[in-house]
Amino acid sequence: MTKVIRNGTIVTADRTWKADVLIQHGKIVAIGENLHADHEFDATGCYIMPGGIDPHTHLEMPFMGTYSADDFESGTRAALSGGTTMVVDFCLPAPGQSLLEALQMWDNKTSKACSDYSFHMAITWWGEQVFNEMAQVVDKGITSFKHFMAYKGALMVDDDEMYSSFKRCAELGALPLVHAENGDVVAQLSAKLLAEGNNGPEAHAYSRPPEVEGEATNRAIMIADMVGSPLYVVHTSCEQAHEAIRRARQKGMRVYGEPLIQHLVLDETEYFNKDWDHAARRVMSPPFRNKLHQDSLWAGLQAGSLQVVATDHCSFTTEQKRTGVGNFTKIPNGTGGLEDRMPVLWTKGVNTGRLTMNEFVAVTSTNIAKILNMYPKKGAIVEGADADVIVWDPKRKKTIAAKSQQSVIDYNVFEGIEVTGLPRFVFTRGELAIQEHEVKANPGHGEFVTREPHAAVNRALSQWKEITAPRKVERTGIPATGV
Amino acid sequence: MTKVIRNGTIVTADRTWKADVLIQHGKIVAIGENLHADHEFDATGCYIMPGGIDPHTHLEMPFMGTYSADDFESGTRAALSGGTTMVVDFCLPAPGQSLLEALQMWDNKTSKACSDYSFHMAITWWGEQVFNEMAQVVDKGITSFKHFMAYKGALMVDDDEMYSSFKRCAELGALPLVHAENGDVVAQLSAKLLAEGNNGPEAHAYSRPPEVEGEATNRAIMIADMVGSPLYVVHTSCEQAHEAIRRARQKGMRVYGEPLIQHLVLDETEYFNKDWDHAARRVMSPPFRNKLHQDSLWAGLQAGSLQVVATDHCSFTTEQKRTGVGNFTKIPNGTGGLEDRMPVLWTKGVNTGRLTMNEFVAVTSTNIAKILNMYPKKGAIVEGADADVIVWDPKRKKTIAAKSQQSVIDYNVFEGIEVTGLPRFVFTRGELAIQEHEVKANPGHGEFVTREPHAAVNRALSQWKEITAPRKVERTGIPATGV
Amino acid sequence: MTKVIRNGTIVTADRTWKADVLIQHGKIVAIGENLHADHEFDATGCYIMPGGIDPHTHLEMPFMGTYSADDFESGTRAALSGGTTMVVDFCLPAPGQSLLEALQMWDNKTSKACSDYSFHMAITWWGEQVFNEMAQVVDKGITSFKHFMAYKGALMVDDDEMYSSFKRCAELGALPLVHAENGDVVAQLSAKLLAEGNNGPEAHAYSRPPEVEGEATNRAIMIADMVGSPLYVVHTSCEQAHEAIRRARQKGMRVYGEPLIQHLVLDETEYFNKDWDHAARRVMSPPFRNKLHQDSLWAGLQAGSLQVVATDHCSFTTEQKRTGVGNFTKIPNGTGGLEDRMPVLWTKGVNTGRLTMNEFVAVTSTNIAKILNMYPKKGAIVEGADADVIVWDPKRKKTIAAKSQQSVIDYNVFEGIEVTGLPRFVFTRGELAIQEHEVKANPGHGEFVTREPHAAVNRALSQWKEITAPRKVERTGIPATGV
Amino acid sequence: MTKVIRNGTIVTADRTWKADVLIQHGKIVAIGENLHADHEFDATGCYIMPGGIDPHTHLEMPFMGTYSADDFESGTRAALSGGTTMVVDFCLPAPGQSLLEALQMWDNKTSKACSDYSFHMAITWWGEQVFNEMAQVVDKGITSFKHFMAYKGALMVDDDEMYSSFKRCAELGALPLVHAENGDVVAQLSAKLLAEGNNGPEAHAYSRPPEVEGEATNRAIMIADMVGSPLYVVHTSCEQAHEAIRRARQKGMRVYGEPLIQHLVLDETEYFNKDWDHAARRVMSPPFRNKLHQDSLWAGLQAGSLQVVATDHCSFTTEQKRTGVGNFTKIPNGTGGLEDRMPVLWTKGVNTGRLTMNEFVAVTSTNIAKILNMYPKKGAIVEGADADVIVWDPKRKKTIAAKSQQSVIDYNVFEGIEVTGLPRFVFTRGELAIQEHEVKANPGHGEFVTREPHAAVNRALSQWKEITAPRKVERTGIPATGV
Ligand SMILES: [Zn+2]
Ligand SMILES: [Zn+2]
Ligand SMILES: [Zn+2]
Ligand SMILES: [Zn+2]
Ligand SMILES: [Zn+2]
Ligand SMILES: [Zn+2]
Ligand SMILES: [Zn+2]
Ligand SMILES: [Zn+2]
Repeated sequence: MTKVIRNGTIVTADRTWKADVLIQHGKIVAIGENLHADHEFDATGCYIMPGGIDPHTHLEMPFMGTYSADDFESGTRAALSGGTTMVVDFCLPAPGQSLLEALQMWDNKTSKACSDYSFHMAITWWGEQVFNEMAQVVDKGITSFKHFMAYKGALMVDDDEMYSSFKRCAELGALPLVHAENGDVVAQLSAKLLAEGNNGPEAHAYSRPPEVEGEATNRAIMIADMVGSPLYVVHTSCEQAHEAIRRARQKGMRVYGEPLIQHLVLDETEYFNKDWDHAARRVMSPPFRNKLHQDSLWAGLQAGSLQVVATDHCSFTTEQKRTGVGNFTKIPNGTGGLEDRMPVLWTKGVNTGRLTMNEFVAVTSTNIAKILNMYPKKGAIVEGADADVIVWDPKRKKTIAAKSQQSVIDYNVFEGIEVTGLPRFVFTRGELAIQEHEVKANPGHGEFVTREPHAAVNRALSQWKEITAPRKVERTGIPATGV
Repeated sequence: MTKVIRNGTIVTADRTWKADVLIQHGKIVAIGENLHADHEFDATGCYIMPGGIDPHTHLEMPFMGTYSADDFESGTRAALSGGTTMVVDFCLPAPGQSLLEALQMWDNKTSKACSDYSFHMAITWWGEQVFNEMAQVVDKGITSFKHFMAYKGALMVDDDEMYSSFKRCAELGALPLVHAENGDVVAQLSAKLLAEGNNGPEAHAYSRPPEVEGEATNRAIMIADMVGSPLYVVHTSCEQAHEAIRRARQKGMRVYGEPLIQHLVLDETEYFNKDWDHAARRVMSPPFRNKLHQDSLWAGLQAGSLQVVATDHCSFTTEQKRTGVGNFTKIPNGTGGLEDRMPVLWTKGVNTGRLTMNEFVAVTSTNIAKILNMYPKKGAIVEGADADVIVWDPKRKKTIAAKSQQSVIDYNVFEGIEVTGLPRFVFTRGELAIQEHEVKANPGHGEFVTREPHAAVNRALSQWKEITAPRKVERTGIPATGV
Repeated sequence: MTKVIRNGTIVTADRTWKADVLIQHGKIVAIGENLHADHEFDATGCYIMPGGIDPHTHLEMPFMGTYSADDFESGTRAALSGGTTMVVDFCLPAPGQSLLEALQMWDNKTSKACSDYSFHMAITWWGEQVFNEMAQVVDKGITSFKHFMAYKGALMVDDDEMYSSFKRCAELGALPLVHAENGDVVAQLSAKLLAEGNNGPEAHAYSRPPEVEGEATNRAIMIADMVGSPLYVVHTSCEQAHEAIRRARQKGMRVYGEPLIQHLVLDETEYFNKDWDHAARRVMSPPFRNKLHQDSLWAGLQAGSLQVVATDHCSFTTEQKRTGVGNFTKIPNGTGGLEDRMPVLWTKGVNTGRLTMNEFVAVTSTNIAKILNMYPKKGAIVEGADADVIVWDPKRKKTIAAKSQQSVIDYNVFEGIEVTGLPRFVFTRGELAIQEHEVKANPGHGEFVTREPHAAVNRALSQWKEITAPRKVERTGIPATGV
Repeated sequence: MTKVIRNGTIVTADRTWKADVLIQHGKIVAIGENLHADHEFDATGCYIMPGGIDPHTHLEMPFMGTYSADDFESGTRAALSGGTTMVVDFCLPAPGQSLLEALQMWDNKTSKACSDYSFHMAITWWGEQVFNEMAQVVDKGITSFKHFMAYKGALMVDDDEMYSSFKRCAELGALPLVHAENGDVVAQLSAKLLAEGNNGPEAHAYSRPPEVEGEATNRAIMIADMVGSPLYVVHTSCEQAHEAIRRARQKGMRVYGEPLIQHLVLDETEYFNKDWDHAARRVMSPPFRNKLHQDSLWAGLQAGSLQVVATDHCSFTTEQKRTGVGNFTKIPNGTGGLEDRMPVLWTKGVNTGRLTMNEFVAVTSTNIAKILNMYPKKGAIVEGADADVIVWDPKRKKTIAAKSQQSVIDYNVFEGIEVTGLPRFVFTRGELAIQEHEVKANPGHGEFVTREPHAAVNRALSQWKEITAPRKVERTGIPATGV
């Protein structure tokens, strides 16, 4: 059975042209004029783009004996309904736990995934076992390792551990990721705020100012540079972190930054809302920032100093959020966004002229696929690629509302924003999952996507570091002589 | 008659994969496995890449009653022999001259071009005629306009003229280019140096320090921002100019920077050579800089803050250079490079790990085609593109030497550099022009390439500028009231 | 007759200590404990500080056939009443006019000055006469030369003229000043705004965005660097200009920046006021900026990258302002501030902890005296210094109001601001001019202050530039040889 | 008995003038013309300046069972002979040791000090005892606390400890200092280098690259900002650290940077010397850097982004250095410099025009006294100040040589540098200690200098932090309501 998308304009990261797209066996098999197939989908007035990839989600994430509310089923369904056809989730071993064992646990959650997915592996502790298992994890097609510089006493690793793990990544040709906030300082500020009676959700923001993120970003960059590894900084939310990334890149370092759609469009005033629930629902780390930081992030996407847009989707219900009444440090960290990332970014980015359509594709899909080394299987409209394809109707509108969303939580941080630009059709590996507001996502359809290590940038960087490595000074008769 | 390139690895700006390339009627018609054709070219061990594009040449450029030595025939032959399959030359109207008339003159020179070519039009004066003719020039497919901020009393335009011309570019959806050096200050410094007896070629460098280039770059950027136009800065040679570009980009401005291969690998010590000829042959504007500036330019290519690599090929013989004995301001400005850009960049960039192969393709070809809005006709290995294709042998070596070059001049500024990485085959619109050291370039084969205005970035920027334009404050009864 | 200020705490730019100050013949003659004199002034609870110096005023400035409203009498009286005991005004020759003739005209205006004063000489045109007269101006004790990069068709000089004049300053050991806005671009933007019907006072701000100031600042810095001169940038109002200054200083360049008290505390929203008069009264160049720029300026004072605070006092009555109804370019540029600079800076700077008291003295007085090379005659509490002394009561309050001010204009841009910190006594060369709200200023008391050229910074910079000057490469038999 | 220095020119941080200086009871009692006294010292042709203060020395510092070679006697004698009249040394408690007990040990070493001295107290561990004793240390007049971010397993403190200690400093009005290098990374790099056989002294430099210092500097700044404390960064040696300091200061943070005279004039090529001893004698942390970093440091002194010049004098004999043959991590860290700081800085700074004479005084003396809050008792030529005065002969020359130095070690890192500018006389609290090459330093003459907490900058910063502290959002009925 073949499908064809007809009468549309293809928009990729590097060009825009009119052509039809023929799909068979889950792949794009032809791109050209006047193609025909068993099923034809009309894209008149629409853009045909690679499906979105969200490089940063936490579906069914364990948290204090409960789980984040969206699991791989509802999460990927929400994703698809907004035009995102793949997610990359985080496997989080408990400190001391085998990476492989944790991976098995995470794998178990994915049986009802509606879209394809991959994993980042978190390094939450260090030891010979971790060192060894990292190679096995890479063999399984997981080539990116996450490090938490915050969450002291839980997931946090120290500089020595980061150095060791980054070095191991460099050897394996893998990519280290960091959640960059100084955990020691966050803990101290949190304690101080609580001691002063500052226990509301706004204190969450106060406890994690931009300086704390900027510092950690800068530190992770230095460590990556010392071991000769590229680095990917997740949820870059502020100018301080962006500045550190830019400064590194301007020296030729291979550093990537990932703003979240939330940080691009929502700001810190959300936390000053008189409604505790309203504020608590926006509690995530890093917290929302002010307009200045937003401008910095947008400019980063324009300049290429920031490369991708994610969500850090980790949804908790209002009831779960209320665990933190009276103590902001107990509010589960996370918000939704999987369903909204693409239409919100289109509306605030493309419709304003901040981004071209091609840049939109790049930051929501293609750049992610490239950085995570799964391009052009994903992130491309090219013959042979997976048919993760969206037909984007730039005129379709809706007002974002929790009551009509796919996510299982009871609110939406983008509530009330009117978006212009929504999918008409969404295909995941050739299967039609979304047709306007009709959701046809198929639980269990999603497959794990393996990725190769030693991406081109890793190889180039290793070569450069070898050429410029410090050289021993040859001496005879040491010590040689006197004054 | 069909041709196929077999057994190679295709390297484009965004990926690397094994496939054959089928060529017919000057176009790429198929990419895939096991393709066959009338003529087969073996690319075993080689990379199949888009032919290089040099966005900045001056072939047969008039200069004080003579012409730069390489014309469109020898220049494009030299280009092809080094893997460059297209050049973009500058049409330079005399002040007061009609743009269209000048274009006719330039067009006349191209009859023997061996490769395709396009033009940038220079704006060397301002008036209603220029304003009007710019639209006609765009209609002819020339959508980029060059402005000289130096060469006082000759080509230089002032800020008012630049503003007017940039504004006109914004309206027409065209791209302004600048040669960025402060011409007033260069003239003053030159006069001072000569007055002090500093008349040798090294004084050329003294008369155009990096600060002078950085300042002009910064100024052009501001003017482009004020009119809402993207900007392309030619021959960005120093950290000061690069800093200005980075600073602008970090604010979301659409500014491009073009380092030359010369500035990436040669430095100012060339001017201190005791041999006057040696130094004079390297006289170009901007002059070579020190190692610091080189590091800055390389990092710019890595970070994406600089996008393309050019040559500013404008070759003068030693005899022509000697016009300036006793007065450095009379030394014709310009060096060669068309033949050497690709192998030198590969050797110093890819072989060291500074650039990936994909980045090499981007900066020598694809980015140029995109910025000048002729992608993917040029700069791509994609079905339907012009078959400007090179088969690159990463093991082929040579030592650069004037005595064996295609350029008609009697020296080579890269003399003695050993390069590893050279073309095995070069195709220009499907015709084989180069087979290793055999040159089969065909004078007259080259065609003019038209380009469309209103590239995506132009449209996006215009939209953003309109949304953020200053708004009138509505008042009634003006002036309203007292203190 | 002797005077003593008793029981106070002396605050200078470098320290704070309790001592009495004895005054005789207009000079400070002793500083110590338990001093006595014919007249004793009680400073209990107060700080004894050097009188403020305003380095930037325009008293009785000619403008389109009229004059700015405050003359040397009312201006210096206003100054004294706010704790400022000296002003430096600008002598503005008409293009073509002799500098000496203009100086005579300006000198004529000062006969009723209540406080001491000095002049900056403006270079509004260039020629041999100007070149020669600059030396004579320096001989008269005027060692700073102002250059307007804006006001096209009136005061503006171009880059060539600036280079020539700055070079002349370097030779004479004088200090060039610049009003840094790109006049060509301001003219273009103004014409565009008017053409679009944007003729209100807010369009004045639109016509002079921060980018235009930043660009000109950067350009002036480059030119000063090329001639080897220090540079003083007047009314630095924005981050862009401050960034250029910082960037230069970070390379060791000797550049000074002067924020105005207006730019530190007032912002662009003033221009959006529905009352035309309100907005027009705030029209000055550069215009008020947003909060971001304010933060930048404050940080500059803290970091030392900006050194002094001025007013650019150039007051026009509402009636004069109304000349520009229907055409913002006709609104006379300028606001008041002489009376308010010290109390407003104290309130917004010292009382908030942004500045220490010593820094307050530095930026309002001492740094100015040093940069303009009249320290410690002015700007110091030291034996032998002029007794320009203020006794500052940190508890005294008032609400700023036009109706109670010394300036002759009918409004005050700081109207309604409550200040805490006001003079109890103000002495000008030993004469009591102000006693709380009693004004005893004595018209005609003020004297011209001469200044010496070749300040320490000028000499050091010249030495460094000479050591690092480009050197000729010695060659024999030129051109030497072939390839 | 009175003394007078006659016929000289006084040079202070803020001015230059001809006057005599009268000394009695160890104090400056008068400054003026034609002063006379019991003993008269002729300063014809000389500059009378405040004696140098070295804010960073390690005299008789314990190290692996031995001590740094210069003790308070030889160290202060060396200091005096070069024009430095006060040193601030570091009291280093062992981890776990009482601060007060350590202070007693350090105090015991000072009985033969020839010049005045003060202490910084190091915080090498954290606990309630340290928290409490910090207050007692401040009561004893020691108001600056040093933190080592390197020397893992010995003196190093982690971020949590730094936060706690900086916070305590903020409460006490004290000043935290940091040795800024990332100790974890240094340890990892060292281990890697040793494992690769890179065991020579050059590997010491390889193990502590500028990035490692820049990172730590940036981190310490962030922590200081979070607690609302000023910060003093010792031995700022590179652009990366300087950049972090500049960036902080540009946001209004109160951060100071201290380049060493070694880093200003010596570079990394010293470590590539074929003579092991030569290289090992230069081993200190941070190591010498390249010319670029030197330029950055000089520019910092010019711009004021770096404020003081020190030595980190910690001299070890060649024999002690040889402990590290075969293992660079065992080479005792430290070089001399106390005797050479002033003449070398004068020669390389003032004689070249990089610094004015006033700036020389500021960075060698006055700024230090101000930052450490002992101005104008020290660092000033003012009535009432301690008579730590030098008479500087700008024409006196010598070539630096170990064989003629006061320091007890057998080499000098400045060996062979010719200096022009040396003391004619040096007075320590009124006692003549040096008369050209005659050394009259008096062991036991030196006294401990107490300092007050709560300097002006501390108070201002605390005020600002209080005003801008995060505020609780007042809510009723929490959580308030639903979606
Ligand atoms: Zn995170
Ligand atoms: Zn996350
Ligand atoms: Zn050019
Ligand atoms: Zn050119
Ligand atoms: Zn002005
Ligand atoms: Zn003015
Ligand atoms: Zn140290
Ligand atoms: Zn030390």
